[in-house]
Amino acid sequence: MRVLILNPNTTSSVTDLLVRAAEPVAAQGTDIVSATAPRGVPYISTRAEAQIGGAIALEMLAERHREVDAAIIAAFGDPGLHGARELFDIPVIGMSEAAMLTACMLGQRFSIVTFAASLGSWYQDCVDANRLQARCAGIRSVGRSFSSIDTVQNEMEDALVALAEQAVAEDDADVVILAGAPLAGLASKVRDRISVPVVDPIRAALKQAEALIALDPRKATVGTFRRPAAKASNGLPDPLANRIGWRD
Amino acid sequence: MRVLILNPNTTSSVTDLLVRAAEPVAAQGTDIVSATAPRGVPYISTRAEAQIGGAIALEMLAERHREVDAAIIAAFGDPGLHGARELFDIPVIGMSEAAMLTACMLGQRFSIVTFAASLGSWYQDCVDANRLQARCAGIRSVGRSFSSIDTVQNEMEDALVALAEQAVAEDDADVVILAGAPLAGLASKVRDRISVPVVDPIRAALKQAEALIALDPRKATVGTFRRPAAKASNGLPDPLANRIGWRD
Amino acid sequence: MRVLILNPNTTSSVTDLLVRAAEPVAAQGTDIVSATAPRGVPYISTRAEAQIGGAIALEMLAERHREVDAAIIAAFGDPGLHGARELFDIPVIGMSEAAMLTACMLGQRFSIVTFAASLGSWYQDCVDANRLQARCAGIRSVGRSFSSIDTVQNEMEDALVALAEQAVAEDDADVVILAGAPLAGLASKVRDRISVPVVDPIRAALKQAEALIALDPRKATVGTFRRPAAKASNGLPDPLANRIGWRD
Amino acid sequence: MRVLILNPNTTSSVTDLLVRAAEPVAAQGTDIVSATAPRGVPYISTRAEAQIGGAIALEMLAERHREVDAAIIAAFGDPGLHGARELFDIPVIGMSEAAMLTACMLGQRFSIVTFAASLGSWYQDCVDANRLQARCAGIRSVGRSFSSIDTVQNEMEDALVALAEQAVAEDDADVVILAGAPLAGLASKVRDRISVPVVDPIRAALKQAEALIALDPRKATVGTFRRPAAKASNGLPDPLANRIGWRD
Amino acid sequence: MRVLILNPNTTSSVTDLLVRAAEPVAAQGTDIVSATAPRGVPYISTRAEAQIGGAIALEMLAERHREVDAAIIAAFGDPGLHGARELFDIPVIGMSEAAMLTACMLGQRFSIVTFAASLGSWYQDCVDANRLQARCAGIRSVGRSFSSIDTVQNEMEDALVALAEQAVAEDDADVVILAGAPLAGLASKVRDRISVPVVDPIRAALKQAEALIALDPRKATVGTFRRPAAKASNGLPDPLANRIGWRD
Amino acid sequence: MRVLILNPNTTSSVTDLLVRAAEPVAAQGTDIVSATAPRGVPYISTRAEAQIGGAIALEMLAERHREVDAAIIAAFGDPGLHGARELFDIPVIGMSEAAMLTACMLGQRFSIVTFAASLGSWYQDCVDANRLQARCAGIRSVGRSFSSIDTVQNEMEDALVALAEQAVAEDDADVVILAGAPLAGLASKVRDRISVPVVDPIRAALKQAEALIALDPRKATVGTFRRPAAKASNGLPDPLANRIGWRD
Repeated sequence: MRVLILNPNTTSSVTDLLVRAAEPVAAQGTDIVSATAPRGVPYISTRAEAQIGGAIALEMLAERHREVDAAIIAAFGDPGLHGARELFDIPVIGMSEAAMLTACMLGQRFSIVTFAASLGSWYQDCVDANRLQARCAGIRSVGRSFSSIDTVQNEMEDALVALAEQAVAEDDADVVILAGAPLAGLASKVRDRISVPVVDPIRAALKQAEALIALDPRKATVGTFRRPAAKASNGLPDPLANRIGWRD
Repeated sequence: MRVLILNPNTTSSVTDLLVRAAEPVAAQGTDIVSATAPRGVPYISTRAEAQIGGAIALEMLAERHREVDAAIIAAFGDPGLHGARELFDIPVIGMSEAAMLTACMLGQRFSIVTFAASLGSWYQDCVDANRLQARCAGIRSVGRSFSSIDTVQNEMEDALVALAEQAVAEDDADVVILAGAPLAGLASKVRDRISVPVVDPIRAALKQAEALIALDPRKATVGTFRRPAAKASNGLPDPLANRIGWRD
Repeated sequence: MRVLILNPNTTSSVTDLLVRAAEPVAAQGTDIVSATAPRGVPYISTRAEAQIGGAIALEMLAERHREVDAAIIAAFGDPGLHGARELFDIPVIGMSEAAMLTACMLGQRFSIVTFAASLGSWYQDCVDANRLQARCAGIRSVGRSFSSIDTVQNEMEDALVALAEQAVAEDDADVVILAGAPLAGLASKVRDRISVPVVDPIRAALKQAEALIALDPRKATVGTFRRPAAKASNGLPDPLANRIGWRD
Repeated sequence: MRVLILNPNTTSSVTDLLVRAAEPVAAQGTDIVSATAPRGVPYISTRAEAQIGGAIALEMLAERHREVDAAIIAAFGDPGLHGARELFDIPVIGMSEAAMLTACMLGQRFSIVTFAASLGSWYQDCVDANRLQARCAGIRSVGRSFSSIDTVQNEMEDALVALAEQAVAEDDADVVILAGAPLAGLASKVRDRISVPVVDPIRAALKQAEALIALDPRKATVGTFRRPAAKASNGLPDPLANRIGWRD
Repeated sequence: MRVLILNPNTTSSVTDLLVRAAEPVAAQGTDIVSATAPRGVPYISTRAEAQIGGAIALEMLAERHREVDAAIIAAFGDPGLHGARELFDIPVIGMSEAAMLTACMLGQRFSIVTFAASLGSWYQDCVDANRLQARCAGIRSVGRSFSSIDTVQNEMEDALVALAEQAVAEDDADVVILAGAPLAGLASKVRDRISVPVVDPIRAALKQAEALIALDPRKATVGTFRRPAAKASNGLPDPLANRIGWRD
Repeated sequence: MRVLILNPNTTSSVTDLLVRAAEPVAAQGTDIVSATAPRGVPYISTRAEAQIGGAIALEMLAERHREVDAAIIAAFGDPGLHGARELFDIPVIGMSEAAMLTACMLGQRFSIVTFAASLGSWYQDCVDANRLQARCAGIRSVGRSFSSIDTVQNEMEDALVALAEQAVAEDDADVVILAGAPLAGLASKVRDRISVPVVDPIRAALKQAEALIALDPRKATVGTFRRPAAKASNGLPDPLANRIGWRD
């Protein structure tokens, strides 16, 4: 089976990082393919960018959905996830969603720990959008800047571990999620330095993608997750327009 | 002061309907200007279309935000609203948001009544996104199809009135919101046939836009609603790219 | 149109302060009239006083409701608001309610910042009564006493600004409400010293009153906000007894 | 010990009914005393009347609190309860509150069944004010009128039993509360005709009053339930003014 | 009437402590009887131990339910409570449940203060299981070890008082619950050193047991709290097997 | 890797059914082993039975945890789950939990459809215990009896499909969970007769077990899910006593 890791950011090094982080946990028979956004921003970190990136994710899926068995939207906040879940027949999983739901099986309350300064309100929105507020012990982010998306994981390793331990001690977190695509792979590296289970979102997402493929759920034919009726559109990229218009 | 009614749908007749519905309640000195999406779908009615339409709303605002004092995103579910609120300095109001918050001043619990069949789950998502679940008595929609977006208001007038009265009788709704851009103007027409106050979203939104303009809130300079730091992008329409890149 | 600012406290200097704070944002054509409680306490700051003050607010409205187009109950916690909304035909708006709902259009989570020491539990009750807990980032009050209601705004200006900035930095507040009638007008004075939008409750309430007047909602004729059936009473002030008895 | 049943309605026959209903469950050594509102309305059934009746309850308590060990506010919605809890040193219990909290020990979810037509929204407010929404399976009321407050219990007995059984069958209620002072005593009469435990609010309240007297909690000296600092007032009845002014 | 204090722990000195703490508040005519778990752990302090201890509580009740009028499950988290409420005809009350519900009549928000280090997440689960999150101001525990269950109350008295005062000052707690069976009796001892009412769970539970006995609720005959239909079992202690099999 | 399907019921035919239902979705390399409760009741269907069965599940795990890589507690309501998660080092997954969390990736709101009449209140408790109320569209059960646990799946197939379709049509369910161990395998059989995705709890649980094994989370060493400190016990089965006493 083929699982698409769809990076709605334009930074291909982050895509590579995600793939490398996911590979070690892939089941036998799982092929990971990936895609990097051809347009948009290098790294989505605001609601506006998520709005734009989510639309681009739909465009990307329209091009590739026939070639894979499931897709992962691999950016914090899962831009475009619910739209994708309507529009396409394959399972589509959000990396944040998968991390949170997986964390729910490792304890009662998870904390989200990340490198991005000052995004607390948006992160809370994302937890709320999953209606998992009562499972979230808190959100903590390192309050300082970093050199680049590519190096943030190394630069902040110690700070993130310290923050995770604080979440455990002060917020009674049972589980920690290390959130943000640029941190992919870090969880396994620091696993033994944090006193509770740590979830790596891309790994959780890959396993959930495999789970959904195996469960083989049917596509809804009624309700809001059925494929919407064919609709005309204009000015949209062909593959997306075709999907919306039922020409694909 | 100038208020932009931004229709993220491509149907200009709906834009006209919205403007006509809003005009009678405009304060002295308020000029309503409008814009219709240059690309996208005729009428947003799914999460996928809202994802796409929200990104288009940002593009439209990038072109016009300097010419107006506030903007209204005039489609159900307020596509692009929170991103717009980050990216631009003017107040941006969502039509659904405005309707719900206004309804909160007319009673304890509102019901949403609409013409769109089978969108219950998505509508509930929209209420939840505003975290107003405890103020919502229910969502009811006419369960049958209609000829066209332009005529749906007339075709369904009686059915909508009946549905509103049911919401009052069975769900204990204190207020009714007639939701969906194609219903703009209907509330005042059927005002006396429904036993509780009825909110017309576009009218509520216009008044809220005027209110925010008068209150003259500063643009946040910290937190998640500050204008995001300048960022490179590629493949985005120039005005939006310029706004994101702080070249506007 | 005439909007009544009803101060359920007996301190007329606070009434004057409220009127002065509201005037600059009044729309063309809005006349502000005011009333100060003829009996009660100088400044409502407990649940008991709100209970008493709310009943007095109803008495005051019974005398004046025919002369105005809308009324604002101008004390924290909106004493008597829901009763007034049942009993009278004009729109009645609470100052706290208006502040919170308006704040919801400026960000996802507001913080309430006030001068009153140790009222946290009651303030939380007021947020809960509006069912806006999920939109509230926190409540902070200056933990020290002050000389008088008339001077508290000046005395505490710096402390309140500092507290607001703390709410932004530590609680991720997107918006700040400066709560308490004696702080009327302060928000615009300190607007540029606080990093996020600041809401002045009386100004928000005036704009909401104007909005409701323009929207011209009908009075409910069924449900719990219809005018209650005529009822005998004894020992109540004549205007209130007449209103309850449908002799007004 | 002496427990005051305080009826904030002016109908003394309802007070008598409450006392008669409570007596059989009084512990040895409990004296029930009662008081009927000297002014107000015959039967509180709206938010406005509860606002007024709650203030009258405070006046009544100011006269009698020194003579009793605890007081019960005996009208639906517990008018004036929280204010009373601040202002007086004795335990004050609300009849609705006591019914709901007691019901929580007899099952997971209670239903409220009552005779008052069309008060659903207000009843829901009362449940919400106790923040017990997640323990409430529903609210049902007989949808028709009745001859008088004095006879409603007899007139509606069968209808109330049927409604209770519906709540059990359709709403999965584990417990039923027969709400409204005029129904005092009915629960024990119909006990065997309803398939789950039935709570009589006045009886629950009496037992809770006795419990609190025995537990002898101290009066808070800090926080929002401490006795408020002495305050001047004007136009309030002497006993209440004296209590507020710390002259009592 | 006879009330059983059932200690699902095997430590009989704790049982004695609970009985001694409860006796002073017993009503005339109340006999307290007690039972200590014949097997299990000395002191339940984890979810696993509560699972086991709850099953043992059911075994103990199966032996004794016919001899008493009500039973109290006297360990934090109320192990076995809901099962007991189904299986037996007498009222069964949880000590934690009773403490929390009683606290709700003394203020709006309670804090739980205890000696057990690092049990925050489980304690939060217990509050959630009662769906009283919105009434809970916080949970605080002394973060250090102690010599023995028998002496913890003396050793930690000062630390617990200090913690309670912190909960009042920093969390706006209106009421404090001193939680954990080994603290039985402490509340009345430190009553005057804590600024708000303090609830002793075993005392609250005894009064609630008396209340339920007096109210004489019928056993549900339908719904999930009816006695389950007779069922075969194997390997269970005879009294429990007999109760499950309707041979008792 | 070896996954244990632990049936806390004593009916081995249900265990076999669970294994047969799970096998088709097992990943390559997954060995399913199973265990049936040696004591207890044939089929857990009440809170009391879940209390007892959960303790038995811990005993069973104490015997087998060293031989497997993960365990599934395979009865509705996940008896003993959280205790197991504390006490053992391997991942332990609840069948209900897994079904609900998996359903969350297939839509916004799931409905639980089951054969057990009149268990609504308990099922709601189970949803609440997972704090997924806001993701649950409703719970529906066939309101009639059946011949035996072994045949219920066949007997009720049509009724369950009809109920599922009702949940979709009337409750806006996006996903349906067919709950109850005796229904294992039914979901795939009726997959095409229900208009939205259907989740088979045992299949979801197996995939989640595999996911957790692959993610290899560390055992918490602090917090409430660390292994509790060694404790004496008496009267417990040896393997469980040894695990609690750190002799295993």
